[in-house]
Amino acid sequence: MIENFSFSLLATDGKARRGEISMPRGRIRTPAFMPVGTGGTVKAMYMDQVRGVGADIILGNTYHLMLRPGAERVARLGGLHEFARWPHPILTDSGGFQVMSLSKLRKLTEHGVTFRSHIDGSPYEMSPERSIEIQGLLHSDIQMQLDECTALPADAKEIERAMELSLRWAERCKTAFGDQPGKAMFGIVQGGDIAPLRVRSAQALSAMDLKGYAIGGLAVGEPQAVMLDMLDITCPELPTQKPRYLMGVGTPDDILKSVARGIDMFDCVMPTRAGRHGLAYTRRGKINLRNARHADDPRPLDEESDCPAARDYSRAYLHHLVRSQEALGAMLLTWNNLSYYQKLMQHIRDAIEAGQFDARAAVITEGWARGDLPPL
Amino acid sequence: MIENFSFSLLATDGKARRGEISMPRGRIRTPAFMPVGTGGTVKAMYMDQVRGVGADIILGNTYHLMLRPGAERVARLGGLHEFARWPHPILTDSGGFQVMSLSKLRKLTEHGVTFRSHIDGSPYEMSPERSIEIQGLLHSDIQMQLDECTALPADAKEIERAMELSLRWAERCKTAFGDQPGKAMFGIVQGGDIAPLRVRSAQALSAMDLKGYAIGGLAVGEPQAVMLDMLDITCPELPTQKPRYLMGVGTPDDILKSVARGIDMFDCVMPTRAGRHGLAYTRRGKINLRNARHADDPRPLDEESDCPAARDYSRAYLHHLVRSQEALGAMLLTWNNLSYYQKLMQHIRDAIEAGQFDARAAVITEGWARGDLPPL
Repeated sequence: MIENFSFSLLATDGKARRGEISMPRGRIRTPAFMPVGTGGTVKAMYMDQVRGVGADIILGNTYHLMLRPGAERVARLGGLHEFARWPHPILTDSGGFQVMSLSKLRKLTEHGVTFRSHIDGSPYEMSPERSIEIQGLLHSDIQMQLDECTALPADAKEIERAMELSLRWAERCKTAFGDQPGKAMFGIVQGGDIAPLRVRSAQALSAMDLKGYAIGGLAVGEPQAVMLDMLDITCPELPTQKPRYLMGVGTPDDILKSVARGIDMFDCVMPTRAGRHGLAYTRRGKINLRNARHADDPRPLDEESDCPAARDYSRAYLHHLVRSQEALGAMLLTWNNLSYYQKLMQHIRDAIEAGQFDARAAVITEGWARGDLPPL
Repeated sequence: MIENFSFSLLATDGKARRGEISMPRGRIRTPAFMPVGTGGTVKAMYMDQVRGVGADIILGNTYHLMLRPGAERVARLGGLHEFARWPHPILTDSGGFQVMSLSKLRKLTEHGVTFRSHIDGSPYEMSPERSIEIQGLLHSDIQMQLDECTALPADAKEIERAMELSLRWAERCKTAFGDQPGKAMFGIVQGGDIAPLRVRSAQALSAMDLKGYAIGGLAVGEPQAVMLDMLDITCPELPTQKPRYLMGVGTPDDILKSVARGIDMFDCVMPTRAGRHGLAYTRRGKINLRNARHADDPRPLDEESDCPAARDYSRAYLHHLVRSQEALGAMLLTWNNLSYYQKLMQHIRDAIEAGQFDARAAVITEGWARGDLPPL
């Protein structure tokens, strides 16, 4: 039985890192992709499928869960793991990002944010202390500090103000979290697309000696090159022996390029959301099953996959399900997509261990570029 | 390898019958409930779950499948079993019922029906011969004659006209179906709520020596007592050694009472549709998971069930999923409901074999009447 949260670097290849996070509820092989289970469910998936495709950890959204079913209720029901039947590690965000993007009548002060639920308009308050309290009620294994994330493009003064506020909130979250050996609270680097602000944020957070560090406020509208520049600037400022989590990222290509810059953890709604919109991620790139070219195609998405959704169902059937808006279409494509993302992470981990990251990343990228099978 | 379609009566208890249909693709234990797989998918279910809960046969809707993906396309793709990954028996309806209820600009003549698709308005023609041709293209194991089903209440003249037309169409379907030893074409008794018309229809169809007989035009708006009266009148007119299928029925209570009158096969969208609307069928009756009483209830729907959906998930979680309109809510409740329906059929079959049908049916009915668990 592992009692303490810990991170081990097992191998590096250039800046790419192969590691392992250990904690009482399990281990997380890094680089890791965390499927998003917004409201206590990874949409259209059974949890045993999520586990089956190779996920070590899922993400829960504090904002959604605090509104419905409510953090205190989840706690009474035994915590999020018990509630959602996922006994493995769970990371929760702080709720801040969605308060800013989804809620109504927001008011932000030094103390925190007041807002109204986008579901029923009822009033809530979120402070750094309340965010940590809620994440604790959810029994979250990896908790995130409350931060203020600025959408890009934004004014430099505004980015700096939000970044500095986030640093002060990190201190308050650290205090609120206290000493929980089996769990972790991560700080979040902010600073928008302004290099000196990213450096300032990363250095100040590093000085707090947290158990892990997220990089937030990226993939919020800026070009990929800007995001990668910010990683190039930020990662060297973060401690080597702590996990680094790039929040809300991203496409398979974003992931490859971010791993190359030293990122260990990712989460993104893309594979699940795309699965509900008829899109399949595969080693041959992204395939739109709505396209008429699939209507008579008896071939599976990927005959070499070990995921039944990719291997056993014809494109013609998937096309039909998507066109007919059948639940099974979303179920199968989400399954395929999460399977593909987890396979990608496994390839990445194997490549780093083998000291072949760049070469194998190039092969993967070529596969996407070559594109889908020619029509029959 | 079974080569011929056949039906064996294994036991009777009063009018209740325990039988078995055999055909090349498998056997069907009767009384049987057929989950509805309208458009080549039992909504929100994986086919291995449908099989896993105990279904021997599913139903496909000819009207939906002819419009999308199209019967000729399904044939090119290897038939409906291959397309939908259900290698076991499939029954298809004739398409007539949905042409009458869903399509636009219908025109009915002695020859057949012309109509326009409710999806895209494109024109179609359906005749007895074309219905059988389509069902053949789908590779359907049990095909239904084209009939005209009259919604109740209706004028006696109108009911009689539709019934007589359905008889003439039965002859044409029989000719079109021809000699297919491994498959079956069933006739459909019509006649609305008028006893002499039901008798006339059943006798005329019996004289055609078909492989099975459906009773149609019930559960279309009339009280349950009227439906049961029609069964009391119709069943004795049908040959003992052929299966009897009550189309589109029904609630668990409808099923118990219809088995008691000699019905062998059922289909209904209730368990699947209810599952998408937050309703669970259980041995304690129908439970509405939207109800606030479940919000904090850690108990499963039925701790004694062997269906994971019934046994492993808390009512609180199901309530949350339903309230949040999460796909998993529909997935779990549909799974629970189909499992419950199949268990009910198994109990019915066991009871008939044991010569205990009335007594056990009373116990089942009492369980429903007793209602759900008291709140915690």
